[in-house]
Amino acid sequence: MKRTSYAGLVDEKLVDQDVVLKGWVQKRRDLGGLIFIDLRDREGILQLVFSQEFSKAAWQVADTLRNEYVIEVKGTVKHRSEGEINPKMKTGQVEVEIHEAKLLAAAKNPPFYIEDNINVSDELRLKYRYLDLRRPEMQKNLKIRNLITRAVHTYFDNHDFYDIETPDLTASTPEGARDYLVPSRVYPGHFYALPQSPQIFKQLLMGAGFDRYYQIARCFRDEDLRGDRQPEFTQIDMETSFLSAEEIQDLTEGLLKQVMHDAMGIDIKTPIQRIEWQESMDRFGTDKPDIRFDMELKDISDVVKDIDFKVFQNAIANGGFVKAICVPGGAAKYSRKDLDAKTDYIERFGAKGMAWIKVTEDGFTGPVGKFLKVKQDEISAAVGAKPGDLILFAADSFKIISDTLGYLRNSIAKEMGMIDESKFAFIWVVNWPLFEYDEGIKRWTAAHHPFTMPNEEDVHYLNDGEDPHKAHAQSYDIVLNGYELGGGSIRIHTREVQEKMLKALGFTKEHAESSFGFLMHALDMGFPPHGGLAIGLDRFAMLLAKRDNIRDIIAFPKNSKATEPLTNAPATVSDKQLLELGLFVNKVDEDK
Amino acid sequence: MKRTSYAGLVDEKLVDQDVVLKGWVQKRRDLGGLIFIDLRDREGILQLVFSQEFSKAAWQVADTLRNEYVIEVKGTVKHRSEGEINPKMKTGQVEVEIHEAKLLAAAKNPPFYIEDNINVSDELRLKYRYLDLRRPEMQKNLKIRNLITRAVHTYFDNHDFYDIETPDLTASTPEGARDYLVPSRVYPGHFYALPQSPQIFKQLLMGAGFDRYYQIARCFRDEDLRGDRQPEFTQIDMETSFLSAEEIQDLTEGLLKQVMHDAMGIDIKTPIQRIEWQESMDRFGTDKPDIRFDMELKDISDVVKDIDFKVFQNAIANGGFVKAICVPGGAAKYSRKDLDAKTDYIERFGAKGMAWIKVTEDGFTGPVGKFLKVKQDEISAAVGAKPGDLILFAADSFKIISDTLGYLRNSIAKEMGMIDESKFAFIWVVNWPLFEYDEGIKRWTAAHHPFTMPNEEDVHYLNDGEDPHKAHAQSYDIVLNGYELGGGSIRIHTREVQEKMLKALGFTKEHAESSFGFLMHALDMGFPPHGGLAIGLDRFAMLLAKRDNIRDIIAFPKNSKATEPLTNAPATVSDKQLLELGLFVNKVDEDK
Repeated sequence: MKRTSYAGLVDEKLVDQDVVLKGWVQKRRDLGGLIFIDLRDREGILQLVFSQEFSKAAWQVADTLRNEYVIEVKGTVKHRSEGEINPKMKTGQVEVEIHEAKLLAAAKNPPFYIEDNINVSDELRLKYRYLDLRRPEMQKNLKIRNLITRAVHTYFDNHDFYDIETPDLTASTPEGARDYLVPSRVYPGHFYALPQSPQIFKQLLMGAGFDRYYQIARCFRDEDLRGDRQPEFTQIDMETSFLSAEEIQDLTEGLLKQVMHDAMGIDIKTPIQRIEWQESMDRFGTDKPDIRFDMELKDISDVVKDIDFKVFQNAIANGGFVKAICVPGGAAKYSRKDLDAKTDYIERFGAKGMAWIKVTEDGFTGPVGKFLKVKQDEISAAVGAKPGDLILFAADSFKIISDTLGYLRNSIAKEMGMIDESKFAFIWVVNWPLFEYDEGIKRWTAAHHPFTMPNEEDVHYLNDGEDPHKAHAQSYDIVLNGYELGGGSIRIHTREVQEKMLKALGFTKEHAESSFGFLMHALDMGFPPHGGLAIGLDRFAMLLAKRDNIRDIIAFPKNSKATEPLTNAPATVSDKQLLELGLFVNKVDEDK
Repeated sequence: MKRTSYAGLVDEKLVDQDVVLKGWVQKRRDLGGLIFIDLRDREGILQLVFSQEFSKAAWQVADTLRNEYVIEVKGTVKHRSEGEINPKMKTGQVEVEIHEAKLLAAAKNPPFYIEDNINVSDELRLKYRYLDLRRPEMQKNLKIRNLITRAVHTYFDNHDFYDIETPDLTASTPEGARDYLVPSRVYPGHFYALPQSPQIFKQLLMGAGFDRYYQIARCFRDEDLRGDRQPEFTQIDMETSFLSAEEIQDLTEGLLKQVMHDAMGIDIKTPIQRIEWQESMDRFGTDKPDIRFDMELKDISDVVKDIDFKVFQNAIANGGFVKAICVPGGAAKYSRKDLDAKTDYIERFGAKGMAWIKVTEDGFTGPVGKFLKVKQDEISAAVGAKPGDLILFAADSFKIISDTLGYLRNSIAKEMGMIDESKFAFIWVVNWPLFEYDEGIKRWTAAHHPFTMPNEEDVHYLNDGEDPHKAHAQSYDIVLNGYELGGGSIRIHTREVQEKMLKALGFTKEHAESSFGFLMHALDMGFPPHGGLAIGLDRFAMLLAKRDNIRDIIAFPKNSKATEPLTNAPATVSDKQLLELGLFVNKVDEDK
């Protein structure tokens, strides 16, 4: 029998028509004589009715069914009687009287119910991923992801981009994260690396004259995992020749418009707001601002510089600042204990404390109220405070203030319910510093990557004797709801600038040659000015599906130990395999 | 300046209009005062004219240009004068008088000319792949590949398929080719495997209820390389639930129609011819028949069984056959020496010799003519021979005859010019044997893979005491111009049949459990009947682009030693990296 409709799409238009349906038994109820089966497929759930009156044979099949059995049925769509209508179900107006039924596959009792909001460990969900994926919310998540990639293909196809594949077995890239390696059998002792991104290849494609490239590209990073990280992840990757940073941002906005329309039915307004990195840091304390709410950082250094309050004066004397955020209505919401907890938390950013005051009709109150009262009107005016508000202060270096108030702004907005969760708020952050100081490895690294083009007027900072760390870059990040969705830049397209850049990053001439020699030789061969962008598909899907774990929008993700509980990968391999690769295993962790 | 058009797309419609163009200097000619530049971009080549009269500054720029320099220019499109029209160029009716010019990047002299049909080693082409890819034929090849993937997305999007990604870091699959391994850092001594195909995952997605899945999937096999093999390759992968083999073939035909239309502008007729595996072997000597020409194999065992010719009689007495092909007009084309060379060649198939005769007005001639003359009319009638034809005979086992005549049919058709190279001839080969005997490892293996469903009436052959090798499968290959383009099958969807299948393949219960346990547990949980297909994208692109090497339709392929001459991957890695992975390198091949 050929299916005539998805069960979840049967509606009143089909009343009195015969349908053939195939799917899973979601639930079976036997009401003496009548058997009701909820049939589930990709599109939803539909009520089937079996009666000996309709068909004895079909009723007998129904009598044997259990949850998750797979069946095919033929029947007639009927209106439900008045009292039986279920307005919560998409198909709740109808049911199907079954005349023929066939069992296609039986099923054992599943280890968890196939329904939303189950309370089951992630490990069990991953081990039985094929069951977990049957749940409507997981079906919806992967549908959204599919709609995103569909929109991506549509958009790039309509804008003259070529979809070009780049290699997965390739060379290691220094200056990135840790690579996954793949031993070579032809050349024992040699290894391929899985790509962390197609960055160099897409630049070479511009050198090859393809003009506009895109790819939905798998990338790999052997890093310790967090909630939104996976060993393999996917990016929407693009590169163009001869365009300015602004033109690439325009193109990207068209893409975002298409995705939001096709995947979510939402028409976003363009152009999307573009702010400079410095402004983003000043106003939001972060380079990925969540602009669904205000509560911006205010620099009150000038207002408070003469107040007799050591904490503030010291900060300013040390070249720092005093900044504040005003929490509307926060005075009642936050107790002293709550605020002490926040003060403890922000120690991780290097903050030495947190001054706060509550604004009352009678002025500032709170532990430091007495110091600040003298300027309370000016402070209130500067931060826009009114009675009932809470003001939080940070007095420190620019970085510590930004980290502290940036964090407080986000966490308090969440706690105060200030965020409209239905909103999708995009913003560009442009003109980044070219370098950033990595506290972990105690040296300057590329803020984006070593191929990022400085602003034209900043190129001279890369010359000998100048301070390269003053340079800003033709780079841009696209931010959604406080998450970095993607980023890109204009790239360096001449050997001369590329060599200076690598030198500024601390590469010796030899190391630069051995690491990036082939790229620099390529740059000698007539490279067009070019630039591009990459968007994290996983994170994009996570945000659109409104999930807070990236695993929920990946069909078969790894767990936090980078293993796949379903297949039990990674696993030990045979001695023969190791021998072929010329490898010895030093130690095997038997406890895996 | 913003580009107004691709250079290669400028035509008479733009005459007298100003254009801004960006691209590469293909050629520069200085005709005293006038400088002509052929400007190249993705879409083609266009003639620019520089004169001090139009712009002295632009002329001075042009005076410095060399091949492969990158420039941007502004100028006015003009008709070429009568004598200057170049009908061979798409843009040959026009030229552009340049008013502004800017050098964007200089270039060193390239190691080979950027033009088609260069005579350069593959190694050099791969080392300078970004230059090789600038050549018009390579641009065209990757454009065709892009049009194919574009059509694939369009088609599956329009047919309710979900694009779902499956993992690249996963478990090793026994019973396949050699895996590429990826050492785990979290669990030293353990390895992921890169997937040879998403086979098991796409089946699990059917078990998860997604109903229709597709993916353009990267796959990996660590095998010795041939002309049309690469360590990493790409397949158009699909799977559906609840459909019959025929319905899946119908869906696939829609896909092929879309691709041929969108990528080649060709409307192919459907349904595509479907023949059984046995018929394909009988008529063409191969399971991937090239049906662009006839010259089919004819079984003449009955006709010749009584002739007094030992070679034929022995073959028949040993349970074999005598079969022949008739080469129209082949008598004059092939000398005895030519035919001796063919006889030598077919020894590799186990053939002990090759009988042949030429048909003249006076009957059969040739070394064995005297034996066959007695039945010459009957033989001629059976193979459709007329004077001037050549008949080739094979007398042996079915397999040796098929290999021999299958090879001769293809090679002679090519030599005789019988193949219409403009044709794209698709054919389905269906109903394959479930198992095939692997002469290399001396045992029966799965003809497709261990998840292939036998024909319903053949399932009993998997029972104890029966001969499983008699079973045929619900499998199907799609063949294009004599190449296997893709293949698929209905899959086993119950544990019971899957266990029998693995047993027939020689798996012990323990080995089956350790290798495919997670799949068999999944099959216990209510799996829909399902099936699918995979098409080799690389081969498809190669055939549509009419190339004979798969490297020509991959942007960055590996060479025959599986290395990437551009990046020099694979390479040695640091001791620190090995230490983290718990590995020792046994031997390093320093000669790489």
